[in-house]
Amino acid sequence: MKKITALALAALATTFVVPASAQFAKAEDAVKYRQSAFFVMQQNFGRVAGMAAGKVPFDAKVAADSAAVAEYVGKLPWAAFGQGTDKGDTKAKAAIWTDKATFDEGANKMQAEMVKLAAAAKTGNLDNIKVAANAVGGTCKSCHDDFKAK
Amino acid sequence: MKKITALALAALATTFVVPASAQFAKAEDAVKYRQSAFFVMQQNFGRVAGMAAGKVPFDAKVAADSAAVAEYVGKLPWAAFGQGTDKGDTKAKAAIWTDKATFDEGANKMQAEMVKLAAAAKTGNLDNIKVAANAVGGTCKSCHDDFKAK
Repeated sequence: MKKITALALAALATTFVVPASAQFAKAEDAVKYRQSAFFVMQQNFGRVAGMAAGKVPFDAKVAADSAAVAEYVGKLPWAAFGQGTDKGDTKAKAAIWTDKATFDEGANKMQAEMVKLAAAAKTGNLDNIKVAANAVGGTCKSCHDDFKAK
Repeated sequence: MKKITALALAALATTFVVPASAQFAKAEDAVKYRQSAFFVMQQNFGRVAGMAAGKVPFDAKVAADSAAVAEYVGKLPWAAFGQGTDKGDTKAKAAIWTDKATFDEGANKMQAEMVKLAAAAKTGNLDNIKVAANAVGGTCKSCHDDFKAK
Protein backbone atom coordinates (compact mmCIF):
# COMPACT_ATOMS: atom_id res chain seq x y z
CA MET A 1 0.00 0.00 0.00
CA LYS A 2 2.78 2.33 1.03
CA LYS A 3 4.64 1.24 -2.08
CA ILE A 4 1.80 2.19 -4.37
CA THR A 5 1.53 5.62 -2.79
CA ALA A 6 5.27 6.12 -3.16
CA LEU A 7 5.15 5.13 -6.80
CA ALA A 8 2.23 7.45 -7.41
CA LEU A 9 4.20 10.27 -5.83
CA ALA A 10 7.24 9.41 -7.89
CA ALA A 11 5.13 9.60 -11.04
CA LEU A 12 3.84 12.99 -9.97
CA ALA A 13 7.32 14.16 -9.14
CA THR A 14 8.58 13.42 -12.63
CA THR A 15 5.65 15.32 -14.09
CA PHE A 16 5.90 18.37 -11.89
CA VAL A 17 9.65 18.63 -11.77
CA VAL A 18 11.70 17.89 -8.76
CA PRO A 19 13.29 20.80 -7.04
CA ALA A 20 13.54 19.25 -3.58
CA SER A 21 11.75 21.44 -1.09
CA ALA A 22 14.65 23.62 -0.24
CA GLN A 23 16.10 23.07 3.17
CA PHE A 24 19.50 24.62 3.33
CA ALA A 25 21.47 24.69 6.54
CA LYS A 26 22.76 28.19 5.79
CA ALA A 27 21.87 30.98 3.36
CA GLU A 28 25.40 30.66 1.92
CA ASP A 29 24.65 27.04 1.05
CA ALA A 30 21.56 28.13 -0.88
CA VAL A 31 23.56 30.76 -2.77
CA LYS A 32 26.31 28.27 -3.59
CA TYR A 33 23.73 25.65 -4.54
CA ARG A 34 21.98 27.81 -7.12
CA GLN A 35 25.29 29.07 -8.50
CA SER A 36 26.55 25.49 -8.79
CA ALA A 37 23.40 24.29 -10.53
CA PHE A 38 23.48 27.25 -12.93
CA PHE A 39 27.13 26.55 -13.71
CA VAL A 40 26.52 22.89 -14.48
CA MET A 41 23.53 23.89 -16.61
CA GLN A 42 25.45 26.61 -18.42
CA GLN A 43 28.39 24.35 -19.23
CA ASN A 44 26.04 21.81 -20.79
CA PHE A 45 23.86 24.36 -22.55
CA GLY A 46 26.96 26.25 -23.73
CA ARG A 47 28.25 23.11 -25.41
CA VAL A 48 25.04 22.78 -27.41
CA ALA A 49 24.86 26.51 -28.11
CA GLY A 50 28.44 26.39 -29.39
CA MET A 51 27.44 23.69 -31.87
CA ALA A 52 24.33 25.65 -32.84
CA ALA A 53 26.50 28.69 -33.53
CA GLY A 54 28.95 26.66 -35.59
CA LYS A 55 31.80 27.35 -33.16
CA VAL A 56 32.14 23.70 -32.22
CA PRO A 57 31.79 20.73 -34.59
CA PHE A 58 28.31 19.21 -34.30
CA ASP A 59 28.19 15.91 -32.46
CA ALA A 60 24.61 14.70 -32.18
CA LYS A 61 25.24 12.38 -29.23
CA VAL A 62 27.09 15.00 -27.19
CA ALA A 63 24.41 17.58 -28.04
CA ALA A 64 21.60 15.26 -26.94
CA ASP A 65 23.39 14.25 -23.72
CA SER A 66 24.34 17.81 -22.84
CA ALA A 67 20.87 19.20 -23.54
CA ALA A 68 19.33 16.49 -21.39
CA VAL A 69 21.63 17.37 -18.48
CA ALA A 70 20.96 21.10 -18.96
CA GLU A 71 17.23 20.42 -18.92
CA TYR A 72 17.40 18.40 -15.70
CA VAL A 73 19.82 20.62 -13.82
CA GLY A 74 17.94 23.72 -14.98
CA LYS A 75 15.12 22.68 -12.66
CA LEU A 76 17.29 22.85 -9.55
CA PRO A 77 18.42 26.42 -8.81
CA TRP A 78 14.97 27.86 -8.16
CA ALA A 79 14.42 26.14 -4.83
CA ALA A 80 17.48 28.00 -3.56
CA PHE A 81 16.10 31.53 -3.94
CA GLY A 82 14.33 31.46 -0.59
CA GLN A 83 13.89 34.44 1.71
CA GLY A 84 17.13 35.57 3.30
CA THR A 85 19.33 34.35 0.47
CA ASP A 86 19.73 37.82 -1.08
CA LYS A 87 22.94 38.55 0.84
CA GLY A 88 26.54 37.50 0.57
CA ASP A 89 28.48 36.40 -2.51
CA THR A 90 25.62 36.75 -4.97
CA LYS A 91 24.71 38.85 -7.99
CA ALA A 92 21.02 38.27 -7.37
CA LYS A 93 19.12 41.57 -7.52
CA ALA A 94 16.48 42.46 -4.92
CA ALA A 95 13.87 42.37 -7.70
CA ILE A 96 13.93 38.56 -7.47
CA TRP A 97 12.08 38.85 -4.19
CA THR A 98 10.17 42.10 -4.75
CA ASP A 99 8.90 40.99 -8.18
CA LYS A 100 8.79 37.28 -7.61
CA ALA A 101 5.95 36.68 -10.09
CA THR A 102 8.01 38.03 -12.99
CA PHE A 103 11.08 36.13 -11.82
CA ASP A 104 9.14 32.88 -11.56
CA GLU A 105 7.64 33.45 -14.98
CA GLY A 106 11.13 33.88 -16.45
CA ALA A 107 12.36 30.78 -14.66
CA ASN A 108 9.46 28.75 -16.00
CA LYS A 109 9.95 30.07 -19.52
CA MET A 110 13.61 29.09 -19.49
CA GLN A 111 12.76 25.59 -18.30
CA ALA A 112 10.07 25.24 -20.95
CA GLU A 113 12.49 26.28 -23.70
CA MET A 114 15.10 23.91 -22.29
CA VAL A 115 12.60 21.05 -22.59
CA LYS A 116 12.19 21.97 -26.26
CA LEU A 117 15.94 22.12 -26.75
CA ALA A 118 16.42 18.68 -25.23
CA ALA A 119 13.70 17.34 -27.52
CA ALA A 120 15.29 19.02 -30.55
CA ALA A 121 18.71 17.66 -29.63
CA LYS A 122 17.25 14.17 -29.41
CA THR A 123 16.11 14.41 -33.02
CA GLY A 124 19.71 15.14 -34.04
CA ASN A 125 18.51 17.87 -36.41
CA LEU A 126 20.92 20.78 -36.19
CA ASP A 127 18.43 23.28 -37.65
CA ASN A 128 15.92 22.44 -34.93
CA ILE A 129 18.67 22.69 -32.33
CA LYS A 130 19.63 26.16 -33.58
CA VAL A 131 16.08 27.45 -33.22
CA ALA A 132 15.65 25.93 -29.77
CA ALA A 133 19.09 27.04 -28.51
CA ASN A 134 18.36 30.61 -29.58
CA ALA A 135 15.09 30.52 -27.70
CA VAL A 136 16.82 29.26 -24.54
CA GLY A 137 19.53 31.91 -24.90
CA GLY A 138 16.85 34.57 -25.14
CA THR A 139 15.31 33.50 -21.84
CA CYS A 140 18.72 33.51 -20.12
CA LYS A 141 19.48 37.02 -21.30
CA SER A 142 16.05 38.44 -20.52
CA CYS A 143 16.17 37.17 -16.94
CA HIS A 144 19.79 38.22 -16.39
CA ASP A 145 19.00 41.73 -17.62
CA ASP A 146 16.31 42.14 -14.99
CA PHE A 147 17.49 40.03 -12.09
CA LYS A 148 21.27 39.60 -12.17
CA ALA A 149 23.77 42.34 -11.38
CA LYS A 150 26.67 42.76 -13.80
CA MET B 1 6.98 10.25 -37.13
CA LYS B 2 9.83 12.41 -35.96
CA LYS B 3 7.95 12.88 -32.71
CA ILE B 4 7.66 9.16 -32.12
CA THR B 5 11.37 8.66 -32.67
CA ALA B 6 12.14 11.47 -30.26
CA LEU B 7 9.96 9.89 -27.60
CA ALA B 8 11.58 6.52 -28.10
CA LEU B 9 15.01 8.10 -27.72
CA ALA B 10 13.83 9.93 -24.64
CA ALA B 11 12.82 6.65 -23.09
CA LEU B 12 16.26 5.23 -23.86
CA ALA B 13 18.02 8.26 -22.47
CA THR B 14 16.35 7.85 -19.10
CA THR B 15 17.48 4.23 -19.01
CA PHE B 16 21.11 4.76 -19.93
CA VAL B 17 22.56 7.57 -17.96
CA VAL B 18 23.81 10.73 -19.52
CA PRO B 19 27.18 12.10 -18.46
CA ALA B 20 27.93 14.43 -21.37
CA SER B 21 31.23 13.63 -23.04
CA ALA B 22 33.36 16.23 -21.38
CA GLN B 23 34.42 19.14 -23.50
CA PHE B 24 35.50 21.99 -21.30
CA ALA B 25 36.84 25.21 -22.71
CA LYS B 26 39.38 25.54 -19.89
CA ALA B 27 40.75 23.26 -17.17
CA GLU B 28 39.34 25.70 -14.58
CA ASP B 29 35.88 25.10 -16.01
CA ALA B 30 36.29 21.36 -15.53
CA VAL B 31 37.44 21.86 -11.93
CA LYS B 32 34.53 24.19 -11.19
CA TYR B 33 32.13 21.83 -12.96
CA ARG B 34 33.00 18.81 -10.88
CA GLN B 35 33.02 20.87 -7.68
CA SER B 36 29.61 22.30 -8.57
CA ALA B 37 28.14 18.90 -9.34
CA PHE B 38 29.56 17.44 -6.12
CA PHE B 39 28.11 20.34 -4.13
CA VAL B 40 24.63 19.93 -5.60
CA MET B 41 24.86 16.19 -4.97
CA GLN B 42 26.13 16.63 -1.42
CA GLN B 43 23.40 19.09 -0.50
CA ASN B 44 20.74 16.66 -1.67
CA PHE B 45 22.41 13.59 -0.20
CA GLY B 46 23.09 15.48 3.04
CA ARG B 47 19.38 16.22 3.41
CA VAL B 48 18.57 12.51 3.19
CA ALA B 49 21.50 11.52 5.40
CA GLY B 50 20.31 14.04 7.99
CA MET B 51 16.92 12.36 8.06
CA ALA B 52 18.55 8.93 8.21
CA ALA B 53 20.60 10.07 11.20
CA GLY B 54 17.53 11.49 12.95
CA LYS B 55 18.96 15.02 12.83
CA VAL B 56 16.17 16.27 10.58
CA PRO B 57 12.49 15.23 10.75
CA PHE B 58 11.76 12.55 8.15
CA ASP B 59 9.78 13.78 5.16
CA ALA B 60 9.30 10.96 2.66
CA LYS B 61 8.61 13.24 -0.30
CA VAL B 62 11.64 15.45 0.32
CA ALA B 63 13.81 12.36 0.88
CA ALA B 64 12.66 10.77 -2.38
CA ASP B 65 13.11 13.98 -4.39
CA SER B 66 16.50 14.75 -2.87
CA ALA B 67 17.82 11.21 -3.35
CA ALA B 68 16.67 11.27 -6.98
CA VAL B 69 18.54 14.52 -7.61
CA ALA B 70 21.64 13.20 -5.80
CA GLU B 71 21.54 10.07 -7.94
CA TYR B 72 21.29 12.03 -11.19
CA VAL B 73 23.82 14.73 -10.36
CA GLY B 74 26.20 12.12 -8.93
CA LYS B 75 26.76 10.91 -12.48
CA LEU B 76 28.11 14.23 -13.68
CA PRO B 77 31.43 15.10 -11.98
CA TRP B 78 33.43 12.20 -13.42
CA ALA B 79 33.59 13.54 -16.96
CA ALA B 80 35.42 16.57 -15.56
CA PHE B 81 38.49 14.70 -14.28
CA GLY B 82 40.26 14.77 -17.63
CA GLN B 83 44.00 15.09 -18.12
CA GLY B 84 45.33 18.52 -17.23
CA THR B 85 42.64 19.24 -14.64
CA ASP B 86 44.87 18.41 -11.67
CA LYS B 87 46.02 22.01 -11.20
CA GLY B 88 44.50 25.16 -9.79
CA ASP B 89 41.83 25.53 -7.11
CA THR B 90 41.34 21.82 -6.49
CA LYS B 91 41.83 19.31 -3.69
CA ALA B 92 42.10 16.48 -6.18
CA LYS B 93 45.14 14.31 -5.41
CA ALA B 94 47.49 13.15 -8.16
CA ALA B 95 46.43 9.56 -7.39
CA ILE B 96 43.21 10.22 -9.35
CA TRP B 97 45.27 10.16 -12.51
CA THR B 98 48.07 7.80 -11.47
CA ASP B 99 45.65 5.21 -10.07
CA LYS B 100 42.69 5.86 -12.30
CA ALA B 101 41.36 2.30 -12.11
CA THR B 102 40.88 2.53 -8.34
CA PHE B 103 39.39 6.00 -8.64
CA ASP B 104 36.94 4.88 -11.30
CA GLU B 105 36.00 1.88 -9.21
CA GLY B 106 35.23 4.15 -6.26
CA ALA B 107 33.21 6.50 -8.48
CA ASN B 108 31.19 3.59 -9.83
CA LYS B 109 30.60 2.18 -6.37
CA MET B 110 29.28 5.51 -5.12
CA GLN B 111 26.92 5.80 -8.06
CA ALA B 112 25.69 2.24 -7.55
CA GLU B 113 24.98 2.90 -3.86
CA MET B 114 23.24 6.15 -4.80
CA VAL B 115 20.93 4.22 -7.13
CA LYS B 116 20.04 1.99 -4.18
CA LEU B 117 19.44 5.00 -1.95
CA ALA B 118 17.12 6.62 -4.49
CA ALA B 119 15.21 3.32 -4.75
CA ALA B 120 15.01 3.04 -0.96
CA ALA B 121 13.82 6.64 -0.66
CA LYS B 122 11.06 5.96 -3.17
CA THR B 123 9.71 3.20 -0.92
CA GLY B 124 9.40 5.74 1.88
CA ASN B 125 10.82 3.22 4.36
CA LEU B 126 13.16 5.02 6.74
CA ASP B 127 14.95 1.84 7.83
CA ASN B 128 15.83 1.06 4.21
CA ILE B 129 16.96 4.65 3.73
CA LYS B 130 19.24 4.43 6.76
CA VAL B 131 21.00 1.34 5.42
CA ALA B 132 21.38 2.82 1.95
CA ALA B 133 22.50 6.25 3.19
CA ASN B 134 25.19 4.63 5.33
CA ALA B 135 26.43 2.69 2.33
CA VAL B 136 26.62 5.87 0.24
CA GLY B 137 28.41 7.70 3.04
CA GLY B 138 30.95 4.91 3.21
CA THR B 139 31.79 5.27 -0.47
CA CYS B 140 32.18 9.05 -0.12
CA LYS B 141 34.58 8.68 2.79
CA SER B 142 36.62 5.90 1.25
CA CYS B 143 37.21 7.86 -1.94
CA HIS B 144 37.94 11.13 -0.13
CA ASP B 145 40.51 9.41 2.08
CA ASP B 146 42.44 8.25 -0.95
CA PHE B 147 41.84 10.94 -3.54
CA LYS B 148 40.94 14.25 -1.90
CA ALA B 149 43.38 16.45 0.02
CA LYS B 150 42.23 17.75 3.41
